[in-house]
Amino acid sequence: MNPKRPLILVTNDDGITAPGIRALIEMMNQIGDVCVVAPDSPQSGMGHAITVNETIYCDKVIVDKNAPQSEYSCSGTPVDCVKLAVNEILHRKPDLCVSGINHGSNSSINVIYSGTMSAAVEAGTMGIPSIGFSLLDYSLEADFEPVKHLVKKLALECLSNGLPKGVVLNVNFPKLAKDAIKGIKVCRQANAHWKENFDKRTNPLGRDYYWLTGEFVNEDKGEDTDEWALKNGFVSVVPVQFDLTAHHAIQDINMWEI
Amino acid sequence: MNPKRPLILVTNDDGITAPGIRALIEMMNQIGDVCVVAPDSPQSGMGHAITVNETIYCDKVIVDKNAPQSEYSCSGTPVDCVKLAVNEILHRKPDLCVSGINHGSNSSINVIYSGTMSAAVEAGTMGIPSIGFSLLDYSLEADFEPVKHLVKKLALECLSNGLPKGVVLNVNFPKLAKDAIKGIKVCRQANAHWKENFDKRTNPLGRDYYWLTGEFVNEDKGEDTDEWALKNGFVSVVPVQFDLTAHHAIQDINMWEI
Repeated sequence: MNPKRPLILVTNDDGITAPGIRALIEMMNQIGDVCVVAPDSPQSGMGHAITVNETIYCDKVIVDKNAPQSEYSCSGTPVDCVKLAVNEILHRKPDLCVSGINHGSNSSINVIYSGTMSAAVEAGTMGIPSIGFSLLDYSLEADFEPVKHLVKKLALECLSNGLPKGVVLNVNFPKLAKDAIKGIKVCRQANAHWKENFDKRTNPLGRDYYWLTGEFVNEDKGEDTDEWALKNGFVSVVPVQFDLTAHHAIQDINMWEI
Repeated sequence: MNPKRPLILVTNDDGITAPGIRALIEMMNQIGDVCVVAPDSPQSGMGHAITVNETIYCDKVIVDKNAPQSEYSCSGTPVDCVKLAVNEILHRKPDLCVSGINHGSNSSINVIYSGTMSAAVEAGTMGIPSIGFSLLDYSLEADFEPVKHLVKKLALECLSNGLPKGVVLNVNFPKLAKDAIKGIKVCRQANAHWKENFDKRTNPLGRDYYWLTGEFVNEDKGEDTDEWALKNGFVSVVPVQFDLTAHHAIQDINMWEI
């Protein structure tokens, strides 16, 4: 590896064969030396799960024999992938960690369910500048061409400026043609939620089971939110923190008679 | 159910048969009508995972036929349990959600890996006052007697005062005798992390695999942290938020040339 080129760790939650991670690898190869450590199967909705009671496999794979990156396929969660990459594969902190490009939105409250973002957050807890990328298109045939140049731009900015301590970036791209994207907006996470709607069925043995489904509800009217930006043709960039302390609430709770 | 008594949802991540949840149920029965929806098996380290590509079973069970609470055993994650409880079992928001008592610490950075806390956070996103409880003793034989009265006290305070919007509580108890506990401190999350140490082995077929292990490292010298409180014989109470936006960083990122 070239000591002057940054070392970039690439991961995701859709699995190592997903088209989204291929687009991300392509762009990262243009700016640094790339190591891919990604789940061997889809891990959507895994949040910040880690594998504590099971074994983890992590094998070197060759997805494209002409490509410059090294690649490892891991049986664990996205967070496991980052931990393994830094501690067992790279044996040093990469200069940048990028996760995605996710097939589907990770805006608003989705950030807490997202394996893509949890991988980025995990790298952030290690002090690695880190970005999660998502495209608002769940399809396997999602077109990443319109956003590739923006992925590269944001990664380069992150490498040259660094990120504030304790912060990683959650980047979501609208599903639009390249020319229709109006720009990039730095936003706050919209105060939206999922309205669950469990689909109850009965299995052939007569036992009830459920499928989790839901409807995304955004009642946040703010024009400074990621949801607003995406609806209005902008790329949303939300700085995300992993100190979950609600510092403003400490005073309130101190009023309790405890 | 008595309309004057609060409706309390109880869950955890150690599974419905764990001693910690039994202690929690016992105390909650003293103050309200209790419904338990908890995982059918241990789910430690599941973070905010949800079950999106698999079916979820959730069956009524009778753990103690003389007990007043209703109980449901769920094949999903702690977060699934909360979603199912509110939408399919209770059909209304409970007045309080309590999660735990976890066998082992969920202080500091552990909050993001914790199924116990993710269940509480999920309830919080629905607007339900919510507390996660943990005891610093991983053992199955952990003694919850010394902290039971404090669990009840905190639940009652939460019911009478409510919680600030967008905030849930992360409560950790030191492993001490009742008389040795010095009091309760409202804290911030310590800036600590895990130093991973993967245990690499080879399976009988010759393929390498890993066990995730690690060492908890706290370099935060602050005396206002949960780690400090617990080390000094206090119960730690950290208000936790699920708006992950690093609002203070928006200005910094807006300086980028994007």
